Amino acid sequence: MIILKLGGSVITRKDSTEPEVDHANLDRIAGEIAENKSKALVIVHGAGSFGHPFAKKYSIGSTIKNDDDFKEKKKGFCLTQSWVKKLNTMVCDKLREKGIFAVSIQPSSFLLTKNKRIYSGDLQLIKKYVEMGFVPVIYGDVVLDTDESIKTAVLSGDQIIKYLAENLRAERVILGSDVDGIYTKNPKKYQDAQFISVVSSLEDLELIEGASAVDVTGGMGGKLKELLILAQNGIESEIINANKSNNINKALKGKKGIGTIIK
Amino acid sequence: MIILKLGGSVITRKDSTEPEVDHANLDRIAGEIAENKSKALVIVHGAGSFGHPFAKKYSIGSTIKNDDDFKEKKKGFCLTQSWVKKLNTMVCDKLREKGIFAVSIQPSSFLLTKNKRIYSGDLQLIKKYVEMGFVPVIYGDVVLDTDESIKTAVLSGDQIIKYLAENLRAERVILGSDVDGIYTKNPKKYQDAQFISVVSSLEDLELIEGASAVDVTGGMGGKLKELLILAQNGIESEIINANKSNNINKALKGKKGIGTIIK
Repeated sequence: MIILKLGGSVITRKDSTEPEVDHANLDRIAGEIAENKSKALVIVHGAGSFGHPFAKKYSIGSTIKNDDDFKEKKKGFCLTQSWVKKLNTMVCDKLREKGIFAVSIQPSSFLLTKNKRIYSGDLQLIKKYVEMGFVPVIYGDVVLDTDESIKTAVLSGDQIIKYLAENLRAERVILGSDVDGIYTKNPKKYQDAQFISVVSSLEDLELIEGASAVDVTGGMGGKLKELLILAQNGIESEIINANKSNNINKALKGKKGIGTIIK
Repeated sequence: MIILKLGGSVITRKDSTEPEVDHANLDRIAGEIAENKSKALVIVHGAGSFGHPFAKKYSIGSTIKNDDDFKEKKKGFCLTQSWVKKLNTMVCDKLREKGIFAVSIQPSSFLLTKNKRIYSGDLQLIKKYVEMGFVPVIYGDVVLDTDESIKTAVLSGDQIIKYLAENLRAERVILGSDVDGIYTKNPKKYQDAQFISVVSSLEDLELIEGASAVDVTGGMGGKLKELLILAQNGIESEIINANKSNNINKALKGKKGIGTIIK
């Protein structure tokens, strides 16, 4: 089974103030996925401009100050859940249009976190969908948290990736991002940023995180942590540029080294 | 905890060839629910014109004939799942607009049937949402079935009602329908149809089913079976006319005898 991540920055216009899909990208990527229909596949997508602005506005996952604050957070929870679900519906519809048996899977219906990390969530159903030839499409969402001081949390697509890959024993994880892979610095800002073709140790991560603390590399540090834990468990992943035409198609067909391999 | 059903025939234009929401009804009913915000509540809604036409077209839940037939069914499964999810999004958005902390719960993400009856599905999360003051909004959906000859099934809102009420030990079940309650015959067709204020035994059911075999009473027979099993387990329910203004409001406030009581 392959787990494919579609980054929120790829399928949405992430910097938009309003939730906005990148229709051209979504259409092209759905087409590339459709070229690999015979593969056992699970798709995880990010929230981009459909999630982050709301989760941030209502500080989902931060300590609850009082009853009024909790009410505001609950309002924000419902609002965020609705928007990310709308994005998921559009992603599934586009995949279905291309002939893929895309089935929506809503994290807030079955996953629970404990201090923002996935704590419980039965994956038997997802496994069953894949076995039947469906393509489950799961996504970054808001979920309940067992920690009484926060009660709700934002669950990132990257954390879902790790949880699914470990528990479903994925053969391969492909992360479609808006950059070519991992750099020593943010390549969008620094011309001397060096591309790293393979990351395999925490030392590599420290090197990059040192850079990201200054550069804010779009959350690459957090993403890498998840992937390095996966690598330790024997599951290889690769971060590729999904904005570039045909990269996802090639990666799904088995090509390696398009981006940065984490192993 | 109260479980409130919003029938597909109430919130959608059920006879429409295209999925179509009954916006006036949905808006009014959301307002009536909002008048009872302090109540611990779970809402279950039907699919109406968002589900039945697709489920029927693709014969979801019927025996799979061959590989091609299964492919068609999978296509239909994905399509139906998408449309009922769209309806659910609209219901949740409308409830949220009225100040209710409506959280969408997607059956196909966590429920499994065995020969079309719910077989497994952890309700701890729904319980937790209610305890926190959210209002979970769950709905008629397509789900996977353990029976290899059908593999997928249509899960009705009525079956969900029974499963939730039993497992969450609901105090009361209110079913918002498009008729005043149970009649000996279809009241829309027969002037001599007699209203039944209380149903309490299988004999009553047989009487009505006898009529329904001729009249097709809009699935009242199936609904009643679920409710009679509930009644045997000590959970009372009432079928009321949700098309009539203020009925849901009154029922949520505790008024009984608006429609037909099943006990």
